[in-house]
Amino acid sequence: MRPAGVLEACVYAVDLPAAKTFYERVLGLVCFADVAGRHVFFRCGDAVFLVFNPEHTATVQTAVNGVPIPLHGARGPGHVAFRVGGAELPAWRRRLDELGVAIEAEVSWPSGGRSLYVRDPAGNSVELATPETWGVRSRSAS
Amino acid sequence: MRPAGVLEACVYAVDLPAAKTFYERVLGLVCFADVAGRHVFFRCGDAVFLVFNPEHTATVQTAVNGVPIPLHGARGPGHVAFRVGGAELPAWRRRLDELGVAIEAEVSWPSGGRSLYVRDPAGNSVELATPETWGVRSRSAS
Repeated sequence: MRPAGVLEACVYAVDLPAAKTFYERVLGLVCFADVAGRHVFFRCGDAVFLVFNPEHTATVQTAVNGVPIPLHGARGPGHVAFRVGGAELPAWRRRLDELGVAIEAEVSWPSGGRSLYVRDPAGNSVELATPETWGVRSRSAS
Repeated sequence: MRPAGVLEACVYAVDLPAAKTFYERVLGLVCFADVAGRHVFFRCGDAVFLVFNPEHTATVQTAVNGVPIPLHGARGPGHVAFRVGGAELPAWRRRLDELGVAIEAEVSWPSGGRSLYVRDPAGNSVELATPETWGVRSRSAS
C-alpha cells in the first residue's frame, strides 16, 4: 500500500498578494481559495498547489469540524516543479520574457527532459519541467 | 497556457537516512535516488517527491551539463499531502499504529474528503488525504 500520487505541493510566502499575482499571471494557475494573511490555493491538474504564509500557519491554530489542523511553516527558499510539455517551452520563454521574469537556469537533463527555473516573489525556486525529466508519462493539461 | 500538474513536491530534512526510512517504511514510497548528504527522491504516481538536505542544497552549487542548478533550502516544518483512497484509510490507520507513528489529526473536510496527518522525523507535516478533499478525481495507485 502506497499513496497514488502527490495531492498537495506547497511553498511559503509572507507576501501572499504578490504570490497570488505571480502564480496567476506568470504561471496561469487558477486560484480557488484566498484567505487574507493565511493562504492562497491553486488548482493544478489533479493536484493542488498551496502557498501559505508561515507567519500564520506556523503559529495560529485553526480547526475544521473541531479538529485542530497541524501547524507548519518553513522559512527560506523552497522548491516546486510544475509539469509542462516540451513543445510549450518556447511559449513559456516568451511569456517569461514579456513579463520580465528572469530565467535563472535552463537545464537539459540526462534523461532528455528540460527545465526552466524562475523565482517567485518570495524567492522560492519554481521549475517548469517536462515529464521526461523523470521518465514519467506525459499527460494533457486539465 | 498553464502547467498540466505538479511534477515535484518537496520537503527538507537534515537527517536524510531517517527521512528515507520513514517514507519507505511508513508510506511505502519507492526511493529511486539517494545522494548521501544531499537528497533522497521517491516516485509517487506520476509525480516525484523529493527530500532535500537544506544544509547542502541551499549552499553547495551543483551543475548539470554545465548549468548551475538554482539553490534552495527551507528550514522549519514544511508540508506535503499524498493522495490515498478513502477505502484504504482503515489500513493506513493500522499501519501507522503498528509502526508507532502518531496520528496528529484526523480531519473530515466539508467537501467530504478525509485526511490523516502525521509528522516525518524532521517535523514536516505529512498528510494522507482522499482526493474528495479537493474535489479532484480519483485515480488508481501506480
